[in-house]
Amino acid sequence: MFKNEYGSKLLAEAVESLATLPGIGRRSALRLALHLLSEPEPNVEKFASSIVDFRSKIQFCPRCHMLSDDGSCAFCDDSSRDCRTICVVESHADVLSIENTGQYHGLYHVLGGIISPIDGVGPGDLTIKELGDRVAAGGVDEVILALSTSMEGETTAFYISRQLAQYNVKLSAIARGVGFGDDLEYTDSMTLGRSIVNRQPFKS
Amino acid sequence: MFKNEYGSKLLAEAVESLATLPGIGRRSALRLALHLLSEPEPNVEKFASSIVDFRSKIQFCPRCHMLSDDGSCAFCDDSSRDCRTICVVESHADVLSIENTGQYHGLYHVLGGIISPIDGVGPGDLTIKELGDRVAAGGVDEVILALSTSMEGETTAFYISRQLAQYNVKLSAIARGVGFGDDLEYTDSMTLGRSIVNRQPFKS
Repeated sequence: MFKNEYGSKLLAEAVESLATLPGIGRRSALRLALHLLSEPEPNVEKFASSIVDFRSKIQFCPRCHMLSDDGSCAFCDDSSRDCRTICVVESHADVLSIENTGQYHGLYHVLGGIISPIDGVGPGDLTIKELGDRVAAGGVDEVILALSTSMEGETTAFYISRQLAQYNVKLSAIARGVGFGDDLEYTDSMTLGRSIVNRQPFKS
Repeated sequence: MFKNEYGSKLLAEAVESLATLPGIGRRSALRLALHLLSEPEPNVEKFASSIVDFRSKIQFCPRCHMLSDDGSCAFCDDSSRDCRTICVVESHADVLSIENTGQYHGLYHVLGGIISPIDGVGPGDLTIKELGDRVAAGGVDEVILALSTSMEGETTAFYISRQLAQYNVKLSAIARGVGFGDDLEYTDSMTLGRSIVNRQPFKS
């Protein structure tokens, strides 16, 4: 007999595991574990194996570093995309967010993080050299920086701009401003200030 | 090459699995899947196996039907608990919630659900007969009904009360009323009404 707050070691371990997920507290983890109890055993096995399979089998595109099932790339290998434009992002999630807008049809370059001396992440830990190689190989007209506005994001953008300065390529950054549906009253002054400085011709 | 909104079949399947969890939408599921990508592979395997182990190895106490790792019961086998009182609840989660209060030291009886004709759950699908057997065996002074206040909860409570009527056992139900910290203004009139009818002598 195992004595803990759950009265069961197996339950305690399942809760412990689920609570390691970001945004899942111990209370939610308990709810999830007890939910799995009500599911048929094969479903739970399938649930677990899909996660392990994803983690162990996933590959990365050697060119843009996006996820790949078999070494091929859903973006780089798509001839309908504009291969002369590269959008630089921090993470795989960012690629999916941009894809979700339906507004971008070029290629990507996933840095795999952001320059952050505090976290011990330097330029060499990211795929910045590989980005330089892609641009050096030619055929690229524009590199769009879609990085966060944090100090780290600005540093990374600046570092990349220096690395690409030697090439004849247009460098741009995504627009910053007041979000759609946001109240001016509740927008931070940094954002609001930039949105005024970078105002656009009015189109009705 | 697999084409879907994630650009990867493995990712899509992991997201699909995670999104089956209650309260986890597709957006959260994507975030969780990408988080697992940043974890070392052995950690992800341990995560998955703790869940599968829990589901496949967990047993139930043959007496109170609470979770058990090895057939023994953290509640029934604890001689420090008051074995003359049984608290009847719908689910395993309810037991843990009541334990969490530190206010109850008797035994439990997990019904495994609630009588609900709409969902096709009848008395025979629950452990009501087993509850009757426990009471019939003697040694029980009080049965506390800690069921929800829904129509189904009331029906289940009524059914149990009829089943136990033949035994010399005190039947009680947990108190209903305005919760601690709740504003009277925002308390539903059913609850507020009951809290007035069932008012208690004032203790300062």
